[in-house]
Amino acid sequence: MHSDLVISGARTPEGDLVDIAIRGATISAVSAAGTAGPAEQRLDAAGWLVAPSFVEGHIHLDKTLLGLPFIPHIPGDTVAARIAAEKQLRRTVPMSIEERGARLIEQIAAFGTGSLRSHVDIDTEIGLAGLHQLLKLKARFAHLVDIQIVAFPQSGIMADPGTADLLDAALAEGADLVGGLDPAGIDRDVTGHLDTVFSLAVKHGAGIDIHLHDGGTLGAFELRQIAERTLANGFQGKVAVSHAFALGDIDDFEFGRTSELLARADVAIMTNGPGPVPMPPVMRLAAAGVTVFAGSDNIRDAWAPYGNGDLLQRAMLIGYRQGFLADEDVAHAFAMVTAIPAGVLGLDGYGIAPGKQADLVLLPMASVPEAVATVPTRRTVIKRGRIVGGAGNF
Amino acid sequence: MHSDLVISGARTPEGDLVDIAIRGATISAVSAAGTAGPAEQRLDAAGWLVAPSFVEGHIHLDKTLLGLPFIPHIPGDTVAARIAAEKQLRRTVPMSIEERGARLIEQIAAFGTGSLRSHVDIDTEIGLAGLHQLLKLKARFAHLVDIQIVAFPQSGIMADPGTADLLDAALAEGADLVGGLDPAGIDRDVTGHLDTVFSLAVKHGAGIDIHLHDGGTLGAFELRQIAERTLANGFQGKVAVSHAFALGDIDDFEFGRTSELLARADVAIMTNGPGPVPMPPVMRLAAAGVTVFAGSDNIRDAWAPYGNGDLLQRAMLIGYRQGFLADEDVAHAFAMVTAIPAGVLGLDGYGIAPGKQADLVLLPMASVPEAVATVPTRRTVIKRGRIVGGAGNF
Ligand SMILES: [Zn+2]
Ligand SMILES: [Zn+2]
Repeated sequence: MHSDLVISGARTPEGDLVDIAIRGATISAVSAAGTAGPAEQRLDAAGWLVAPSFVEGHIHLDKTLLGLPFIPHIPGDTVAARIAAEKQLRRTVPMSIEERGARLIEQIAAFGTGSLRSHVDIDTEIGLAGLHQLLKLKARFAHLVDIQIVAFPQSGIMADPGTADLLDAALAEGADLVGGLDPAGIDRDVTGHLDTVFSLAVKHGAGIDIHLHDGGTLGAFELRQIAERTLANGFQGKVAVSHAFALGDIDDFEFGRTSELLARADVAIMTNGPGPVPMPPVMRLAAAGVTVFAGSDNIRDAWAPYGNGDLLQRAMLIGYRQGFLADEDVAHAFAMVTAIPAGVLGLDGYGIAPGKQADLVLLPMASVPEAVATVPTRRTVIKRGRIVGGAGNF
Repeated sequence: MHSDLVISGARTPEGDLVDIAIRGATISAVSAAGTAGPAEQRLDAAGWLVAPSFVEGHIHLDKTLLGLPFIPHIPGDTVAARIAAEKQLRRTVPMSIEERGARLIEQIAAFGTGSLRSHVDIDTEIGLAGLHQLLKLKARFAHLVDIQIVAFPQSGIMADPGTADLLDAALAEGADLVGGLDPAGIDRDVTGHLDTVFSLAVKHGAGIDIHLHDGGTLGAFELRQIAERTLANGFQGKVAVSHAFALGDIDDFEFGRTSELLARADVAIMTNGPGPVPMPPVMRLAAAGVTVFAGSDNIRDAWAPYGNGDLLQRAMLIGYRQGFLADEDVAHAFAMVTAIPAGVLGLDGYGIAPGKQADLVLLPMASVPEAVATVPTRRTVIKRGRIVGGAGNF
């Protein structure tokens, strides 16, 4: 039987030169280069590196201002001030969430992202409107990306009474996970905040992904509180904490007891390789058994003007920020935008092997470390067995 | 009289839409869009942002491994161990400095760099061979970039006896500045090292650019020693210190007395926006009157696999690392790869005005902050009045 598509002469991350045969949306065979059978369509990879599609661990499809003229950043010294500034901006932006989010999806798909976890603001002003637009985007772009949605209380839960009910409704209406935000720093009620988040997750059988910017021993305490509730509820493997700057900002004793508990509870940590603030030490956490995955976070939005959603550039930023130099360390940064978030998001059939999803990205490089260090913009992107992009002129 | 080239409808950093008329290598007129007279050649800028060419404040043309297959990083825990690893690699690299440097020059020129300061290793093993190859590159690529050369004692001066004489010879044979390296950390003789560097500079009337990785109070002490010698020798405005990690790693008292002295001695600081180590606080130094400029430093060499020499990406990295969000801060990061290093390098005729050099870069963006935040790879590059690149497919 003919394949629908054969990618010939691609280099795997392990260094093998292979042909990849695809039927429908599935890889049907991986064989030595030059040995694939007939196919409707052939793509000569010319020795380019092939990898499974990038997996975006943390993005905000509803926040981006892409598609609009560049809007100067509205300053705010505290997280609370910036939440207020964003709400102010949101009321006047002359483009819908769906339109802006569509721009962002098209951009990141062209870079090679095949799956993503997006947070969406839920608060008593916007209600579930953002969620509804993300659900539309999820259906509209199903051919380009798989979307997982976190109901995110950007204005707090206790600080914005009524939000808990909205989160409950959001989970009933299609959100996949429940979010949280600085139980101490924003809600000033660690117990109340986390009890609410975990009870909603238990009620809906949903995963959890909490934004935690609180630093130092306070943030570490909250991380342990999250890990303890994860264990108590049998939620191991279903909870992530995004940012967790505190892990880069505590002494060895605090780090030791916190990382031990995170590992035991299988709570994953998301980092975007932050610039000006402490960053969780990736390899030290890995050595302690803690999963650390990557995400872009804000992409030209009210929080920051930076970011383009290219996860290869994100891997580079993380490697650069962490001082990864050796090939195996640089390759770990690549894993943080591929296999590791695929595991955290629970993606089925992720990888390059017969029976796996034909979600692939081709890069004009000879190896994974070279790709991360170089960040070429040329790519060829395959999603569900179809060539959906051959970007390169960003 | 006809112009040789008119760039029509370009947006200046100040926001004006202008025509730029060029005769030979010089800007002859800047006028409102649509008003330029006849020209041999017209380039429709279509509203793209125009800026003076990027100025590379710190690069190592002799170290890059560009043009070779990707070489895995050879680890080394200390600066000394990495110097040894680099020397080992250098002996076996199957491509000349001239060939590798040529690749790098072509790459950075396509990104829009029009002038650069390159360090070149001088030690008792390689002698002046690297300098001679850089002098060849300087002549060969005079149409693409203006090159300034620093004679850099990568193996130390006191630690590698004979190097002082080689530096002396290098300055006689065409090096523009004398370098230095960790007077304490590598040479273990702050006085001896700095006395040698300054006496060579005085003898040749050359500028100074010293690599200083030593951190904390030790690095701060060395910075003050450099500033004091700068004042004593009347070398204000002729001395730069590259990296100066210490400035990101000292208390307020040390920072205050060190920055005050650096400002008074007009010693400039070069930063590449380092990832894993403390970074000089750019705005705090600027407020203290200290000039801080940017450079790429290592680009795929024995020190690090990262870097592509794109100074627009470097401005982004610096802005990201420093938490620059407001337009004026992001624009300051842009100044660190344009006007500020142009001042440090003492470039003549830098800017967009009649009589200035026709060294320009066009970017498909509406403003400087948008360009820095976005880092588009598409560019049109003009050097000495000629269109030398229209990159975009990196
Ligand atoms: Zn976020
Ligand atoms: Zn250097």
